[in-house]
Amino acid sequence: MIQTLSALQTVHAPIAAELERVEHRFSEELGSNFSFVNELCERVQRYRGKMLRPTLVLLTGRACGGVSEDHVTIAAVVEMVHVATLIHDDVLDEAGVRRGQATINAREGNQAAVLLGDYLMSHAFHLVAGLDDPYAARRMAATTNTVCEGELMQVHHRADVHLSEEQYFEIISRKTAALTATCCELGARYAGVSADQVTAWERFGADVGVAFQIADDVLDYTGSEDQMGKTLGRDLELGEPTLPTIHALRHADPAVRQELSSVLGNGHSIPRRRICAWLEAAGSLEYSHRVAHGYISRARDHLLGLPRSPARDALLLATDFMIRRAQ
Amino acid sequence: MIQTLSALQTVHAPIAAELERVEHRFSEELGSNFSFVNELCERVQRYRGKMLRPTLVLLTGRACGGVSEDHVTIAAVVEMVHVATLIHDDVLDEAGVRRGQATINAREGNQAAVLLGDYLMSHAFHLVAGLDDPYAARRMAATTNTVCEGELMQVHHRADVHLSEEQYFEIISRKTAALTATCCELGARYAGVSADQVTAWERFGADVGVAFQIADDVLDYTGSEDQMGKTLGRDLELGEPTLPTIHALRHADPAVRQELSSVLGNGHSIPRRRICAWLEAAGSLEYSHRVAHGYISRARDHLLGLPRSPARDALLLATDFMIRRAQ
Repeated sequence: MIQTLSALQTVHAPIAAELERVEHRFSEELGSNFSFVNELCERVQRYRGKMLRPTLVLLTGRACGGVSEDHVTIAAVVEMVHVATLIHDDVLDEAGVRRGQATINAREGNQAAVLLGDYLMSHAFHLVAGLDDPYAARRMAATTNTVCEGELMQVHHRADVHLSEEQYFEIISRKTAALTATCCELGARYAGVSADQVTAWERFGADVGVAFQIADDVLDYTGSEDQMGKTLGRDLELGEPTLPTIHALRHADPAVRQELSSVLGNGHSIPRRRICAWLEAAGSLEYSHRVAHGYISRARDHLLGLPRSPARDALLLATDFMIRRAQ
Repeated sequence: MIQTLSALQTVHAPIAAELERVEHRFSEELGSNFSFVNELCERVQRYRGKMLRPTLVLLTGRACGGVSEDHVTIAAVVEMVHVATLIHDDVLDEAGVRRGQATINAREGNQAAVLLGDYLMSHAFHLVAGLDDPYAARRMAATTNTVCEGELMQVHHRADVHLSEEQYFEIISRKTAALTATCCELGARYAGVSADQVTAWERFGADVGVAFQIADDVLDYTGSEDQMGKTLGRDLELGEPTLPTIHALRHADPAVRQELSSVLGNGHSIPRRRICAWLEAAGSLEYSHRVAHGYISRARDHLLGLPRSPARDALLLATDFMIRRAQ
């Protein structure tokens, strides 16, 4: 953990001052006249962990020539959208623990959690609508549309043991990669680089997002709750097929396939380590790592094509960190 | 019902063509590549009833000199925001029926309902962020912040039998009147009238919203589910004090006060007609009507100060309709 923390600090180093301003902007925007709203928002602050999305906005901006006040605003906005989706996800997943603490829904009820997510989302739009250039507001709204579609698609396919890999990638491209892509797109665009470069950064952000989500889906089976700070094994309980199980449903022994299908499709309960052993034996974990690695390699290729700079090196380190996380 | 329908048609008459364009814009914006999302959205279309909020935008615009394409967009946006809050409200209230049909949460589960509300909200922001003048986007975001605060405040005060009238007005001003005020403000502003006139219209919209909410809160006790097309008696079951019960908790006989306090505070179940008899005896229904009437009178005074026009007369008829609805 100490090593992880120090790696994260190194990633954040080129943008440490700006990240602090992001946190300040985040808290300032959410301030309410009502103390109970402020108390809920204070609890929400603790949902924020690695600040991956603001980091992508700021490091991309820095790598593209400079971080402006608009970047700080956009970084606060993407984190707010992300935290809003986390709060609603926890309602959807009936999750009890997030970042090592009781979730809002577990502590305050689903009502407060639904409303608090709405509150954050509308504050994110309020903040982004205040920018002089309206592009970011339009882009953020389009991105959240896409994220919602991805989430709706995921819920729609619960217990669907026939979900294809292609459909899985459609889901995670929308629910996760759309936002990381927009982080990098806006980071580049608001630094004033060419349209081609903006598109390349958008692609970089999408690749990072897909790799990150695959890693997350693997860790839902193999991770430790202490380290991850959240309830694990939920994909299985909710019947949500992800890359490891989609692979195993096609490549494991027939008996295992049948049992896994029954667990995912009919909600049969089974210990997580037993599934882990199946995924291991079918080569599904190794396969998922390999696929995630492919996305990270492409993201690294983009970075290696840029001139050296502290921001580029910090992004390389971040991708390194993701590969290690996924293994 | 026939009389009501014809009154509504008369209210809509000066803006019938624009209302159709609003409906078209609404459906067009929500179109998705995914058929299951479209199916959910089609069900949502049926949530739309009297189109009160688009009507306020369009009639205000017309009364102020003209309805532009921006008005049509804003009208679709406010309806989308309103429907999104209805969908989330039904999750919060665990409601089973809306507009005479099973709610999204009852039919598709809370997950789909939470996500669909998010989907509509983000589409509303997408649509409004596309306008040339960014004012409406900023105003809509600020308004949804206020609406969320009002809803959070309401949930926070469930089972609070000490809720004051002042706090009740704070809640309904935020959760209902903020949006109707913004409808009229934007309707006037985008028609190009003076700042003073815009403020007067905003006040008009707020008064209409407060009166409408009080009427709704009375009808939750006195209305018929058939006519209202939704589950009634929920305020009592959820322990949400509203104007009639706040009044009765202070003015009914001591024995009734104690029993009412126990019903609202501890969730004891009791037939709705029994509460109705208490509210009647304590003069609480009559008091609520009088208060609502005061707001409608002020709203009518604003209209009567304007030159005669079909739009002004339609708005007068709408306020008439609200008074009758509340009685």
